[in-house]
Amino acid sequence: MEQIKVGVVGATGYAGSEICRLLYSHPAAQLAAISSVSFEGMALSEVYPAYRQVIDLVCGTQEEVVAKSDVVFAALPHGLSQELGAQCVAEGKAFIDMGADFRLESEEDYKAWYGGTFTDPALHEQAVYGLPEFFREKIRGKKLIANPGCYTTAVPLALVPALEAGLIEQEGIIADCKSGVTGAGRKPSQSNHYPELNESFTAYKVANHRHTPEIEQTLTKMTGKPVKVTFVPHLLPINRGILATCYAKLKPGVTEEQLWQAYQARYEGEPFVRLLPKGQVANVKNVRTSNFCDVSLFVDGRTGTFIAISAIDNMVKGAAGQAIQNMNLSFGLEETAGLLLCPPAF
Amino acid sequence: MEQIKVGVVGATGYAGSEICRLLYSHPAAQLAAISSVSFEGMALSEVYPAYRQVIDLVCGTQEEVVAKSDVVFAALPHGLSQELGAQCVAEGKAFIDMGADFRLESEEDYKAWYGGTFTDPALHEQAVYGLPEFFREKIRGKKLIANPGCYTTAVPLALVPALEAGLIEQEGIIADCKSGVTGAGRKPSQSNHYPELNESFTAYKVANHRHTPEIEQTLTKMTGKPVKVTFVPHLLPINRGILATCYAKLKPGVTEEQLWQAYQARYEGEPFVRLLPKGQVANVKNVRTSNFCDVSLFVDGRTGTFIAISAIDNMVKGAAGQAIQNMNLSFGLEETAGLLLCPPAF
Amino acid sequence: MEQIKVGVVGATGYAGSEICRLLYSHPAAQLAAISSVSFEGMALSEVYPAYRQVIDLVCGTQEEVVAKSDVVFAALPHGLSQELGAQCVAEGKAFIDMGADFRLESEEDYKAWYGGTFTDPALHEQAVYGLPEFFREKIRGKKLIANPGCYTTAVPLALVPALEAGLIEQEGIIADCKSGVTGAGRKPSQSNHYPELNESFTAYKVANHRHTPEIEQTLTKMTGKPVKVTFVPHLLPINRGILATCYAKLKPGVTEEQLWQAYQARYEGEPFVRLLPKGQVANVKNVRTSNFCDVSLFVDGRTGTFIAISAIDNMVKGAAGQAIQNMNLSFGLEETAGLLLCPPAF
Amino acid sequence: MEQIKVGVVGATGYAGSEICRLLYSHPAAQLAAISSVSFEGMALSEVYPAYRQVIDLVCGTQEEVVAKSDVVFAALPHGLSQELGAQCVAEGKAFIDMGADFRLESEEDYKAWYGGTFTDPALHEQAVYGLPEFFREKIRGKKLIANPGCYTTAVPLALVPALEAGLIEQEGIIADCKSGVTGAGRKPSQSNHYPELNESFTAYKVANHRHTPEIEQTLTKMTGKPVKVTFVPHLLPINRGILATCYAKLKPGVTEEQLWQAYQARYEGEPFVRLLPKGQVANVKNVRTSNFCDVSLFVDGRTGTFIAISAIDNMVKGAAGQAIQNMNLSFGLEETAGLLLCPPAF
Repeated sequence: MEQIKVGVVGATGYAGSEICRLLYSHPAAQLAAISSVSFEGMALSEVYPAYRQVIDLVCGTQEEVVAKSDVVFAALPHGLSQELGAQCVAEGKAFIDMGADFRLESEEDYKAWYGGTFTDPALHEQAVYGLPEFFREKIRGKKLIANPGCYTTAVPLALVPALEAGLIEQEGIIADCKSGVTGAGRKPSQSNHYPELNESFTAYKVANHRHTPEIEQTLTKMTGKPVKVTFVPHLLPINRGILATCYAKLKPGVTEEQLWQAYQARYEGEPFVRLLPKGQVANVKNVRTSNFCDVSLFVDGRTGTFIAISAIDNMVKGAAGQAIQNMNLSFGLEETAGLLLCPPAF
Repeated sequence: MEQIKVGVVGATGYAGSEICRLLYSHPAAQLAAISSVSFEGMALSEVYPAYRQVIDLVCGTQEEVVAKSDVVFAALPHGLSQELGAQCVAEGKAFIDMGADFRLESEEDYKAWYGGTFTDPALHEQAVYGLPEFFREKIRGKKLIANPGCYTTAVPLALVPALEAGLIEQEGIIADCKSGVTGAGRKPSQSNHYPELNESFTAYKVANHRHTPEIEQTLTKMTGKPVKVTFVPHLLPINRGILATCYAKLKPGVTEEQLWQAYQARYEGEPFVRLLPKGQVANVKNVRTSNFCDVSLFVDGRTGTFIAISAIDNMVKGAAGQAIQNMNLSFGLEETAGLLLCPPAF
Repeated sequence: MEQIKVGVVGATGYAGSEICRLLYSHPAAQLAAISSVSFEGMALSEVYPAYRQVIDLVCGTQEEVVAKSDVVFAALPHGLSQELGAQCVAEGKAFIDMGADFRLESEEDYKAWYGGTFTDPALHEQAVYGLPEFFREKIRGKKLIANPGCYTTAVPLALVPALEAGLIEQEGIIADCKSGVTGAGRKPSQSNHYPELNESFTAYKVANHRHTPEIEQTLTKMTGKPVKVTFVPHLLPINRGILATCYAKLKPGVTEEQLWQAYQARYEGEPFVRLLPKGQVANVKNVRTSNFCDVSLFVDGRTGTFIAISAIDNMVKGAAGQAIQNMNLSFGLEETAGLLLCPPAF
Repeated sequence: MEQIKVGVVGATGYAGSEICRLLYSHPAAQLAAISSVSFEGMALSEVYPAYRQVIDLVCGTQEEVVAKSDVVFAALPHGLSQELGAQCVAEGKAFIDMGADFRLESEEDYKAWYGGTFTDPALHEQAVYGLPEFFREKIRGKKLIANPGCYTTAVPLALVPALEAGLIEQEGIIADCKSGVTGAGRKPSQSNHYPELNESFTAYKVANHRHTPEIEQTLTKMTGKPVKVTFVPHLLPINRGILATCYAKLKPGVTEEQLWQAYQARYEGEPFVRLLPKGQVANVKNVRTSNFCDVSLFVDGRTGTFIAISAIDNMVKGAAGQAIQNMNLSFGLEETAGLLLCPPAF
């Protein structure tokens, strides 16, 4: 079979470079062109010496990427994807957006949280939200895919089965999340300067993070009733990984057994969701560099609280890996193609 | 003034060695004797080379410590402090217990969570719980002090002012806590082996940690009505520090301003509680090696949720520093004596 | 082509588990059986939850491994491989030893540094030393391969081209090496307990490490004249990687250009050695989880000193990856089979 | 006694802020004024929240600092200290320079390595080099002190006793050094961005670092004959600390015993040098936040090599602590005043 030609716009950012890494062992797609505003003319392996002799492709322009590719992944600052997406769609290319431009269905929410507008509402109508475990059938064959954010993958994967099955209250849900530093991107800043972040731990954007409406959109859609979430992200002094510790009030009479059954039924056969055995807790280290999401369940009988803890690699299932999973669905490939990697044990 | 003679039983554990470090610059107390079952006959500086030429005292027996001291700090495994405490009290020594034996007032709770019994209930009657910010007047002059645990210091300091002032609901409180590794002690284990813990993050003893009844005891006592808490601890790949992210439902009509006023009133003049300005978030790095507890407040207006985030050094305000603060109160010294240290900025 | 059946004895140690991980994506070999004394009866994914749904093979006995495999990798404590190696050879299996039993050709050195004897000298005669870049032709088709240690891979790859070409003095060579913690194995110890090792850095076994005679054996063999090395290893607070900073006195009149030419000629076409461009320095992060060895060269004209700095992943090129490279040579497969992985950039 | 009034120019950098921290517990000196170009008008505790309620002094201008102080510490970029030093000396203030402007006696070296000139050679004549263990008597009472760099403290403290005693060759000395990240300063950069540095290790400025001539100046001065050093610094993924592993060729017939005697004689009574017992190795963690320099000695009899390994906290003995030690000498205070702190064991 002919290889799908893949282009990456913004390839030198963390998400972009991770797409390139994963494509290296993809059986049916190959990296055809990459672009970078900051590093045009440089090989990707000059920016990331880890890639020397592996991915020595040179960064060109966004135009070149579009011209050479069947599918374009765009890792751009929020707001810049709408125009590029329109162009790709017009030219018959698939477009998978790593940014937030197409994630929210409500323009009002987009304005409130991102300060932008939908420049082409009809285009937004075509976009599908790329969380395959919940929207798989909608994604198949689509050409315009909004790839979810990292927290917005981890939290719904932890909570949806319980919400769908009506086992927890929709009011009072709390998502206490902790992310590795790569989630903040490659640009140096005071707060991510090594001596400031090392041996530190804190929360940020408390109850004020832009992923809040996106999480609520997914939970609401899957439940059929409005769901609000108190969302507090924290910054871990590690490179990769998100742990989402989610709390919800059990509905009266619900048993732990019912919860386990709901999750087992929901995730049976899912290639990338690993429901852990009772008593085990998800850990970010066990999913590192892989597309897995580990999910673990607990009930606090003393307080009537359900606790679901999920772990993903924010750069893989939370970004690049999920994007490739979406590409596979879009092009009719095996959904797991290129993503069956064994995470290192240490 | 004559120096108070201090003894430390279990000096080679993390909490014990930290008491020794802090006493080194105490103006009115000096280390008189130390003991260790594992390292008897060795100098403390052989066990911790950082202390070379600073604390070269040799570990003797528990008996020697009692004989030579005016006050005995006991960092012993749970269950072993009751007998030693009885002996110290009988001999007129002050006894400050770093373990859990005297913390819980309810023997039923002690049985349920620790599996032990109160060998001398009359002795328990004499014990006072050493959280000075809430029980200062009861601690003054007392000879038998139960030093609180780490989580059990951080969570009440975050929540009590709001509970006392009746601004939050007593139902549905969640304490999502994250601790550095020293909290697990000095004994090597698989889970704290460097390559297993480095770049990892997970929860442990989910809704099942022994500090739960101790947290509830303090919150209940300060509120006058029973309070239950869902408590989930996590393990951070850093050495020191606890961040407690606490969630509670706001009572109807409560304003953010009321919350700030309650905390300001409560903590005004407290030497070791730093209420951070609005917008700043507590960070474990800012309290490292110090006796400070930083407290930060947030309100999620969208969901009606109060969020209080506190940070302590689990080995200082969460153990050794608080113990010295209690000693100061017990002996009528300046409460801050020996504890006015500037935490390193990095 | 029929898949080669691979067995791993000692699969739950770090080196053993890493062999299993790499085999997961090997096109011509598959994991057939594993054993572990400590975890017999448990799935590898119970010991390493990262492997869940990826490598769920159950640990059996050493006997089962031998019976089911075409090639046996043995990650055993030093001294235990001789008997197993003899058995495998007798049964016509290939045997790749991760330990030191077959590495040293001199029984005298083995006695002096390991305190053991050659139980079957004829067997040692059959063993070949598995450093493919220098002994490739000897390894092809062989059934008994001594896989080198980690330092003993990094140091010769840094120094051999200069020694072979006669550009540096054989006297006075210094190898100042720094290793990640996985090199010390999976068994918890005080020195590798997280709070003791985190934010620490020191040397160990100064001029007294068992890899010294093995390094000297390779350098001597490649040079034809006896070479001695002052070797000082250090322990880095990271999981993976060795950086070897090697110093040697330049021979009179030697130019930097000559050195570059010698290395370029030596390593041209080597799939796993990346000679870095002038000015770049090898970094352990760039080879992490891969079989690459990065080599960088410097000359201190002020003092007439040659400095070669190499970086490997101690668990891959320094252990499991090199072992698979040796298996590929032994079985006549493509030497790079299963090892063409893109190292993560972060 | 009246307190010495101390000013810090450049107080918000790492070295400057560390001077402020140490002064907090100094018995005879107090922080009178601080300045910062970047943070003028802000409290030091706004820049470093760790200092809240401890050092809330507000950053003013350089002029204010000079006006209010008896002694000025200048933590300025290289090249800016000469003018300020001249001003302070003219006004009768003591001036302790944390930068390199007054460290090198040879203007030729200064030009070659820093690209600057001596704007006032007579001023340079007055400057004394502030390494108290070797130049104590020259420092006493002096008003213009060049505080050494970090590597330039660690390497001479490791090597001088052996050189002075004529036990090692002056040719062929190698200093393989490893530094924590704070040595690179507070300004964010790509290479010190957390995800790039975490789990990484490499060398930098190989045989090309500006501390080279300064190290050689001290060794030459203490030996009376020219000494050259091959110096290679590495960057450790930790916050604080330098480990210097120094290699030299033993002179013929020299015994290990002679070396120990030379070091014991040299460092007897030194308050901040801890010569470790035979077999122990210096570790950066044991000197963290303290002014100690730990020194450990080894002989490789196989190759005739002497190995001295020293450890300091680069920000204390390698910067701020040593500066205060120099102030104490300059003002006739107890040399250890303000510096007798117990380093944390973990």
